[in-house]
Amino acid sequence: MTPRTAEARAVERANQAFYDAVENSDLDALESVVLDGPLAESVAVVHPGWPVLRGRGEVMRSFALIMANTDYIQFFLTDVEVGVDGDAAVVTCTENILTGGPAEDDGSAGSLVGGLVVATNVFRRTADGWRLWVHHGSPVLAEDDDETAEAEHEE
Amino acid sequence: MTPRTAEARAVERANQAFYDAVENSDLDALESVVLDGPLAESVAVVHPGWPVLRGRGEVMRSFALIMANTDYIQFFLTDVEVGVDGDAAVVTCTENILTGGPAEDDGSAGSLVGGLVVATNVFRRTADGWRLWVHHGSPVLAEDDDETAEAEHEE
Repeated sequence: MTPRTAEARAVERANQAFYDAVENSDLDALESVVLDGPLAESVAVVHPGWPVLRGRGEVMRSFALIMANTDYIQFFLTDVEVGVDGDAAVVTCTENILTGGPAEDDGSAGSLVGGLVVATNVFRRTADGWRLWVHHGSPVLAEDDDETAEAEHEE
Repeated sequence: MTPRTAEARAVERANQAFYDAVENSDLDALESVVLDGPLAESVAVVHPGWPVLRGRGEVMRSFALIMANTDYIQFFLTDVEVGVDGDAAVVTCTENILTGGPAEDDGSAGSLVGGLVVATNVFRRTADGWRLWVHHGSPVLAEDDDETAEAEHEE
């Protein structure tokens, strides 16, 4: 919405690199995105519907587990907003997620399921560039004000 | 878990002041907790199950709405972890929430409902102290590994 500064664009690239790493099940790429060093113990991640995972080790193990149990995942990011101040930056975005089951025998993709998650990602500037400090994703449960739709179908 | 530094304690107090303000439906107190100034447009909040709200104005309106529609709310914070680095700090915590309906005619409290939310709160250091930059709360949907319990009751 707002024109990006060079810094904000660098943060947005780091944000995209994070999702690319998960999408590609590339744990090495993810290792290079997630903050390390003195702040490693304060790295925190909340996967949608999960409790808080704290500490780089626990966070990386959770992603390894997710990658091992996900045959196909693709993120279409929308509403990407970046706020940078000094050495910290906050990204908010909507993850439009497409996941799929195992591929069919003929190599075609399994059936796909869509999902909607909102995320706040906090990045920290390091000598090597921006690194992910916090990722919090959560399901969007109520998109409109109409809460009665589900109650219509009683017989 | 880790002993708090003086800075971390200051952040924890700001975090508590945020929850106190919501608990007391004190919009003025909340005004003094939420970051203002050049970064006001990047203030972001995700209420549990909601999409992202971005910008201080929209965030404050959402809290005013929540306060107007909440007769009683109390937060018991657990697992409060603070990470401080320079002018930014990240708090993760579990909000054990008690909400209640309208008071009875005799003045006693209405029936109470419990809820479990995990939150990541990002604070920014200002000349006036630590201020809330981002609040992301999300429901904990799966506390244990047993996903089959709900499927047991088909007849």
